[in-house]
Amino acid sequence: MSLTFPRGFRAAGVTAGMKPSGRPDLGLLVADRVRGAAGLFTTNAFAAAPVRLSARRLAEGEPRAVVVNSGQANAGTGPRGHRDAETTTAAVATELGIDPSLVLACSTGVIGEPLDLGRFLGAVPGLVRDLSTDGGDAFAEAIMTTDTVPKAAAAERGPYRVGGCAKGVGMIAPDLRLATMLAFLTTDAPVGTAELRRLATEVLEPRFEALTVDGCSSTNDTVLLFASGAAGGDPVLPGTSAFEQVREALEEVGTSLVRQLAHDAEGASHVLLVEASGASNEADAWLVARAIADSPLVKTAVFGGDPNPGRLLQAIGASGAAFEPEGVEASIGGVRVVADGQVVPSYRDVEAVQARQALQTREVEIRVRLGDGPGSGGAIGVDLSYDYVKINAEYTT
Amino acid sequence: MSLTFPRGFRAAGVTAGMKPSGRPDLGLLVADRVRGAAGLFTTNAFAAAPVRLSARRLAEGEPRAVVVNSGQANAGTGPRGHRDAETTTAAVATELGIDPSLVLACSTGVIGEPLDLGRFLGAVPGLVRDLSTDGGDAFAEAIMTTDTVPKAAAAERGPYRVGGCAKGVGMIAPDLRLATMLAFLTTDAPVGTAELRRLATEVLEPRFEALTVDGCSSTNDTVLLFASGAAGGDPVLPGTSAFEQVREALEEVGTSLVRQLAHDAEGASHVLLVEASGASNEADAWLVARAIADSPLVKTAVFGGDPNPGRLLQAIGASGAAFEPEGVEASIGGVRVVADGQVVPSYRDVEAVQARQALQTREVEIRVRLGDGPGSGGAIGVDLSYDYVKINAEYTT
Repeated sequence: MSLTFPRGFRAAGVTAGMKPSGRPDLGLLVADRVRGAAGLFTTNAFAAAPVRLSARRLAEGEPRAVVVNSGQANAGTGPRGHRDAETTTAAVATELGIDPSLVLACSTGVIGEPLDLGRFLGAVPGLVRDLSTDGGDAFAEAIMTTDTVPKAAAAERGPYRVGGCAKGVGMIAPDLRLATMLAFLTTDAPVGTAELRRLATEVLEPRFEALTVDGCSSTNDTVLLFASGAAGGDPVLPGTSAFEQVREALEEVGTSLVRQLAHDAEGASHVLLVEASGASNEADAWLVARAIADSPLVKTAVFGGDPNPGRLLQAIGASGAAFEPEGVEASIGGVRVVADGQVVPSYRDVEAVQARQALQTREVEIRVRLGDGPGSGGAIGVDLSYDYVKINAEYTT
Repeated sequence: MSLTFPRGFRAAGVTAGMKPSGRPDLGLLVADRVRGAAGLFTTNAFAAAPVRLSARRLAEGEPRAVVVNSGQANAGTGPRGHRDAETTTAAVATELGIDPSLVLACSTGVIGEPLDLGRFLGAVPGLVRDLSTDGGDAFAEAIMTTDTVPKAAAAERGPYRVGGCAKGVGMIAPDLRLATMLAFLTTDAPVGTAELRRLATEVLEPRFEALTVDGCSSTNDTVLLFASGAAGGDPVLPGTSAFEQVREALEEVGTSLVRQLAHDAEGASHVLLVEASGASNEADAWLVARAIADSPLVKTAVFGGDPNPGRLLQAIGASGAAFEPEGVEASIGGVRVVADGQVVPSYRDVEAVQARQALQTREVEIRVRLGDGPGSGGAIGVDLSYDYVKINAEYTT
């Protein structure tokens, strides 16, 4: 019920039969009233039809519902895809008795396959009937594709509640904006659209951008954030303690969702928490953190339980960031394996044994210090396993 | 004997015992006289000690020998690594009776491990004794790491011969310059250093840069090109038919070596020949070709025998290249799967079957047309298999 933990929201999830697996595949989230709405979208040039529709409607008004299907991505589907996104949101709007411009859409699943419009539309009346103030869990389940568990989180600060859920296990990279990741967050704080957009940019964007499963940003990535205002009280404005309360609750939910996404990433047996510091600027730190988190050689080494400082050097050195090689330090699980820009001379005899131990845990911290600059940045990645290959070689996404 | 197919070169390969496998691990190539020498080097910030030494000596003179060890990369080894590179080349120079500045060095193997200096130096006298005009094969074998076969090629045009060999199966990407790939080319044409540098840049660089196994450019990548002049005749100058003959022979050998490297890439069951055209410029075409060749989702799809046009769209769209999505076309193995920027509507029923057939071959051609611009570019990649993970999870490189 995470998404419906904040007051003023109803949600539902049903099985429309669009997914070959026969699992739930259609979700709906509705705010009875809305004080603000904001979104973050992929910048993939082939952004899906629902992405374009949602971005446009968010720019022009204050939508208060979103319908989500899993099974077909409705990306790479041309003019038909755009018509289908219009048609499905119109059907939901009619059933809800609101204007179509107030309904957003998200799709996830196979790229290039059109929506199964008959089944989608046939399921809409039941979907709207099922809406309830504890429908968050059903919604979280309906948006899953190859996810093995639903991801949900909730937080409370003072009078305000924040809830959220997300899906996505592959085709995830922070390159442009986000990835085949859908995330939905709600709050009952009375936050207007301008302030919500600021919170989305400042709190959610850096968190979701830090996540990389395979360096592939998807055509469908979307993060939506709605405020119902149902908690009551004065409008929440920047510079107030109320604003900080909402920010903190959003940080908690956003951080939790990203961590849950990483842990459920395709084939992942380890989550890599990479931090780079001491760079001359933030962009360089981010380049280095991401180069490590995306390196197939680092990822396979971690999967194999091998703390391989040479592969760290390779990734750092090829990242494109500017730094003095002689000043670089790096540690794996707290064990310093690189100092003065070289693998520590005692590595084979001492550090290798300790760092190998550190790889026994599911979450592995990799820290790099590039120099004395002020720039720092992080990335959350996963290892590269047989199962990643298996899932992606055998499943059509 | 490829490397020693051109006249005026001797080579050897021996087992110094530096590699745990006990296979040959030390190679030497010497030109009796040299008319020109040129090199291409990695731009990884952690470029190995032998890379720095070789680049410096090539900039300052006309070296005519190169000693290559496999087993330790002598990268990430700090000041000791630089001293060791000086020491080993000095030992070879003494044994050859030439100045140390004429001897280059290459290393490949585990990053961060110092050279086993005792074994290296102990093997030098035997290595020099073994030099012969048909030692090219022994050299090609001594430089291998996880390569399963040696890579060698030879070509002849008019009076000129060109030979070459290469090693490298992983940590290969074209990002900056090259990758854990070493390649050596020889010619007996009387080509001076200035002209050889031009040929290296124009003929070899684009070919070796097109190759990407895993997007990871190494600390040690080197391509060296020597001309002995032993074929005789006038100096070969640009604008002459002689220059074109040398260029053609180099193209043939370079193309062959790159193709051989791709076919032996770690775990590869398919080689991806990606061509992008119609871009507004060459850089954009190259971005798209490389995005496809490096996409783990495309790579696993090809491994799984699934011609997945949605993943092509994802990779093209996230490449960062500028283009009109509606104008994009793409084909897999000659089967058009994307047209007008969308997956062809008949894909499921018609093209999927044909394209699946096309994935039965070891070499798979993927062509993308981005628009009507003049820019084109290519990349050579490989699929991502269980064996890639296995090799990189279980082998310390």
